[in-house]
Amino acid sequence: MENNKCPGFKAAGIASGIKKSGALDLGLIVSEKPAVVAGVFTKNRVKAAPVILDQERIQSEKCRAVIVNSGNANCCNGNEGIINAEQMARFAAAGLGISEELVLVSSTGVIGEPLPIDKIEAGIPKLVKALVPDGFIDFAEAIMTTDTVPKIVCRKGELNGKSFTVLGVAKGVGMIHPDMATLLGYVCTDVRMEAELLKKMLVTATERSINRITVDGDTSTNDTVLIMANGKSGVVINDNDAVQYFQNLLDQVMIELARLLVKDGEGATKLVEIVVKGALSDDDALNVSRTVAGSNLVKTAFFGEDANWGRIIGAVGRANVPVDADRIDILFDDVVMVKGGKGCGKEIEAEATLVLKKPEFVVTVNLNLGKGTASVMTCDFSINYVRINADYRS
Amino acid sequence: MENNKCPGFKAAGIASGIKKSGALDLGLIVSEKPAVVAGVFTKNRVKAAPVILDQERIQSEKCRAVIVNSGNANCCNGNEGIINAEQMARFAAAGLGISEELVLVSSTGVIGEPLPIDKIEAGIPKLVKALVPDGFIDFAEAIMTTDTVPKIVCRKGELNGKSFTVLGVAKGVGMIHPDMATLLGYVCTDVRMEAELLKKMLVTATERSINRITVDGDTSTNDTVLIMANGKSGVVINDNDAVQYFQNLLDQVMIELARLLVKDGEGATKLVEIVVKGALSDDDALNVSRTVAGSNLVKTAFFGEDANWGRIIGAVGRANVPVDADRIDILFDDVVMVKGGKGCGKEIEAEATLVLKKPEFVVTVNLNLGKGTASVMTCDFSINYVRINADYRS
Repeated sequence: MENNKCPGFKAAGIASGIKKSGALDLGLIVSEKPAVVAGVFTKNRVKAAPVILDQERIQSEKCRAVIVNSGNANCCNGNEGIINAEQMARFAAAGLGISEELVLVSSTGVIGEPLPIDKIEAGIPKLVKALVPDGFIDFAEAIMTTDTVPKIVCRKGELNGKSFTVLGVAKGVGMIHPDMATLLGYVCTDVRMEAELLKKMLVTATERSINRITVDGDTSTNDTVLIMANGKSGVVINDNDAVQYFQNLLDQVMIELARLLVKDGEGATKLVEIVVKGALSDDDALNVSRTVAGSNLVKTAFFGEDANWGRIIGAVGRANVPVDADRIDILFDDVVMVKGGKGCGKEIEAEATLVLKKPEFVVTVNLNLGKGTASVMTCDFSINYVRINADYRS
Repeated sequence: MENNKCPGFKAAGIASGIKKSGALDLGLIVSEKPAVVAGVFTKNRVKAAPVILDQERIQSEKCRAVIVNSGNANCCNGNEGIINAEQMARFAAAGLGISEELVLVSSTGVIGEPLPIDKIEAGIPKLVKALVPDGFIDFAEAIMTTDTVPKIVCRKGELNGKSFTVLGVAKGVGMIHPDMATLLGYVCTDVRMEAELLKKMLVTATERSINRITVDGDTSTNDTVLIMANGKSGVVINDNDAVQYFQNLLDQVMIELARLLVKDGEGATKLVEIVVKGALSDDDALNVSRTVAGSNLVKTAFFGEDANWGRIIGAVGRANVPVDADRIDILFDDVVMVKGGKGCGKEIEAEATLVLKKPEFVVTVNLNLGKGTASVMTCDFSINYVRINADYRS
């Protein structure tokens, strides 16, 4: 376990009263020097006010601070929403004594209710006062909505004898089809690198991590992942080896965050990796694994600990990629449940059912057609998912 | 209410022991003369044995009988599955004393378990004996899986002073994303028409009914809709007026069946029509209405009677068609909940919540961009959906 700090950064999380429960709901990350920044934002055609503001400001490629509230998405609030997002940044900037142009903003929570900007304004002095190098855990808690645990991952690297840090924080994402369950992620690092390269590496890591929990197609109005690099370590990422080394570390951090997100999926009791092999292409494999991972019927069967492979093969068939039903193999961990499109019988099914009782397992679908592979992480679909989402606002 | 008979047809449903519960599980429809037949089948790349058999046989455009079992999908059973589907038709043909080439077959239920063909063979004499003109209600019951009520719709028409009948029977389709919940539908009519025209009219009616409960993208391995026209009434459908008149009646029957299917969706407590107006095209409107109708988060909010329009607008935004967030209106029945992308306040929300408490209501999304319209029927997403699907096989 690392120490959850990143040199040159401070963070904090406080309760400002946005959440009726009195839980932490306002977070701040500050870099002691302007950091190079890059971001990935929702593809939803309806974008929340803070996303619109950040997409504009991030063009400067520089940032000193990010302020985030939970409990209210500041989305569908018209022009007032934009004004409030700007205000939120302005108040934070004033509290920190920095330029408001260097402050980014995120919000997550219910859509269509006015942001309680007065509560945020009133909370700023306390928030700024709370800033400490190991404040990321409070920050992680302050950005939670239906998450049950804060999500933070910290890894150290070393290049040319100098050590550096990659620290990531995220919040979910209800489940594999997160739909409106906003995903927010923030990565801090003390390396130095060009903004263009930073963006490219963030996009690559996102594709390998968060987009493998099938978030992509179902981005919410507020989804945002930001990375800030402040150069404090003196490590410069510019040659090929350094880029590969850093990418690998960044991937690790974001894949672990993605894992934590799925594991804490709304109502989830099981973490399942859907591995597809033997497709005609990697794209085909990804398409099949996403379709299986996103199927309500497959996911409810996981919840019921029912080795109902017929639902899996049905989902494979509707992924709209070439398959030959008579060549499909399906494994639950290493139990071969289906061979050449046919079930392997009741005894094997009993073994597979034991696998399903585990909190984490792997379902492998081999199409036996080519060399394409992909994997997607998903969770089961429980009665509590419906409970959580039927009662969310009440 | 019509009398659920169609001249020249008989039907029956019996318990053959495939279902452990002893419920009806084997159904038969017979036309006294060879009928013209047309069909629409699943687009799933994995097709059940009876679908493969029917797609071959239907090329003759003639049919005398359809035999259907529930409790077993006869899918993913390899070559044995095909042999069993053929056997099933052969046994029925022998019992009826007709050519086996004129018998079509459907199966619905669990995938990957061998079809208990011996039980079907043993049940044939009883099944044939049970054939009566008003046996369609037993047939409708015999094809049910997780359906809670049989679904049958009968309408009379008149052309050139002669009356005729269109009688439809269907089984679900768990919910709006039916996924592996097989949809089977059978329409009998006593008009006469060419096979090509019959196929065209069936495809049109399917597009206007069953495909508007978003079945299309998520077809199961067994989905089948068949129409048989035996000419018994003496009414010939060949000129434009007759075609329009018949299409209208066929649409009515199939739309009503689709409504019954959604209403009996697994665990459903509410029937909701999602109407989209003001899109740039009808296709865009359909895309938006399907995305809203298929959203787990929208559907769980309906179940929770929560007027959470933010989830609706979020689903609108991810339908990937042009929208302007600041122009969107959303109505719950005639309560204007969102105007120009902004919520209309707590008082209106209280009114909208009353609408949500109704067993049936309409959600209208007006994009205010063009003239494209479409509507899709959906249901809410309840705790019982998960219960039903977690326990389905046990």
